[in-house]
Amino acid sequence: MIACGPRLELVAVPGIPLVGPGADVPAVISHALASAGIVLSDGDVLVVTSKLLSRAEGRFVGLGDVHPSARALELGARIGKDARIVELILRESTAVSRAAPGVLVVRHRLGFVVANAGIDASNAVPPGAGAESGPWVLLLPESPDASARAIRDRLESESHARIGVVVSDSFGRPFRLGTVGAAIGVSGLPPLWDRRGEADPFGRALEQTITALADQVAAAADLVAGQAAEGRPLVLVRGMRFDSSEIGARALTRKPEEDLYA
Amino acid sequence: MIACGPRLELVAVPGIPLVGPGADVPAVISHALASAGIVLSDGDVLVVTSKLLSRAEGRFVGLGDVHPSARALELGARIGKDARIVELILRESTAVSRAAPGVLVVRHRLGFVVANAGIDASNAVPPGAGAESGPWVLLLPESPDASARAIRDRLESESHARIGVVVSDSFGRPFRLGTVGAAIGVSGLPPLWDRRGEADPFGRALEQTITALADQVAAAADLVAGQAAEGRPLVLVRGMRFDSSEIGARALTRKPEEDLYA
Repeated sequence: MIACGPRLELVAVPGIPLVGPGADVPAVISHALASAGIVLSDGDVLVVTSKLLSRAEGRFVGLGDVHPSARALELGARIGKDARIVELILRESTAVSRAAPGVLVVRHRLGFVVANAGIDASNAVPPGAGAESGPWVLLLPESPDASARAIRDRLESESHARIGVVVSDSFGRPFRLGTVGAAIGVSGLPPLWDRRGEADPFGRALEQTITALADQVAAAADLVAGQAAEGRPLVLVRGMRFDSSEIGARALTRKPEEDLYA
Repeated sequence: MIACGPRLELVAVPGIPLVGPGADVPAVISHALASAGIVLSDGDVLVVTSKLLSRAEGRFVGLGDVHPSARALELGARIGKDARIVELILRESTAVSRAAPGVLVVRHRLGFVVANAGIDASNAVPPGAGAESGPWVLLLPESPDASARAIRDRLESESHARIGVVVSDSFGRPFRLGTVGAAIGVSGLPPLWDRRGEADPFGRALEQTITALADQVAAAADLVAGQAAEGRPLVLVRGMRFDSSEIGARALTRKPEEDLYA
């Protein structure tokens, strides 16, 4: 069962600090919710930015420590991109989809297709880092589904509510400009909402009706989260109902052989 | 100026009937808002499904009346799709991006890339239609930006609030499964949110920071709108602030020459 009521509310949860390596993210979130007086209930979904997890996992890399391979050097020269970043992108990926000036679109080891393997240079300086090892970049979290699961486990055991957790990142897209929030980790919330069995008011079966539920939740939360100084890395989405799902974010990814644009 | 507060609320506006050709959509929306006791204020965004507009514009086509061209017959045979639907897709498009079994991905005359030109067979029977002309399909609205503008003009003049209007459709995507809401018409709300000038907490300029604002609003609203019997073709999004924009939805579309996947 999946449903969304006629009213959906998104609230940025205040009090999440800029965490560093080793932070216990489930505990940080639990504490922030308690401090804000938020009591979780069934159907609540928490959307956490990938950046919060990456920082907690210490996924910082100082480019001074990266020694590019011959392939990264060649590719970097060809597309005009720092070979050390190209090296990191290749390490994080299983295939290159497109290479163009300044950008490498790759299939990430986590299964999705993303520009530059989701590697980001904003908010990427680790706490207490000296300038000598920089510039710094931040890799995507190791295992966002597992991180979502760990957050959900802690909060469900504390609240006795059945919730969902989504780990979000901002993705560019073919065909369309601007980034949108996408789900790279999911626990509890079904990633896809298959409505093919339902009928429209005339009884005709609905056609194009598998909704990317977790991606839409991530996109909605991205409106509230922002990315800049007022960053809000945790957003509570309230107003949906669903039976708990154990399906991860890979269900949102097309297999290359079923992708007309692979 | 564009901003989103820490709280965003989405509400399905009740009382929108299943309209037919000739319906005055701005009046229908105005009436539904008044009946629900909703008073618009600055920064409110109304998201209207494309289907509501298509029905009001009488964009129904009975396939019995469609005579496919030689090209449509050839293409339909090749991909195993009704040549009459292929004919309509080609008429609505400026280029074919991909052809595969059962699906034609095209560049729509409105500028965006979409499967099957957005032509839909659910909720596609016009009021009072006999069975003899069917089956029926529904084309996308003629000019969604202009429709958004007309809705906005009426509601702004009645409410004296500065609002945004988005016309949404559900799009499939390369790389990822499931549909997401996308903006095919926009008025008032800036379609893109360019945050490149802002700094992150370390003062480094943000990198990948042009957000597809109107698409994310459409995706969020799609969660509430649903598509089936309980269809909610009008969603109010409350909690953003923005200076009125006159930029239409075409700003969300990549030019083919800047699209690595065109």
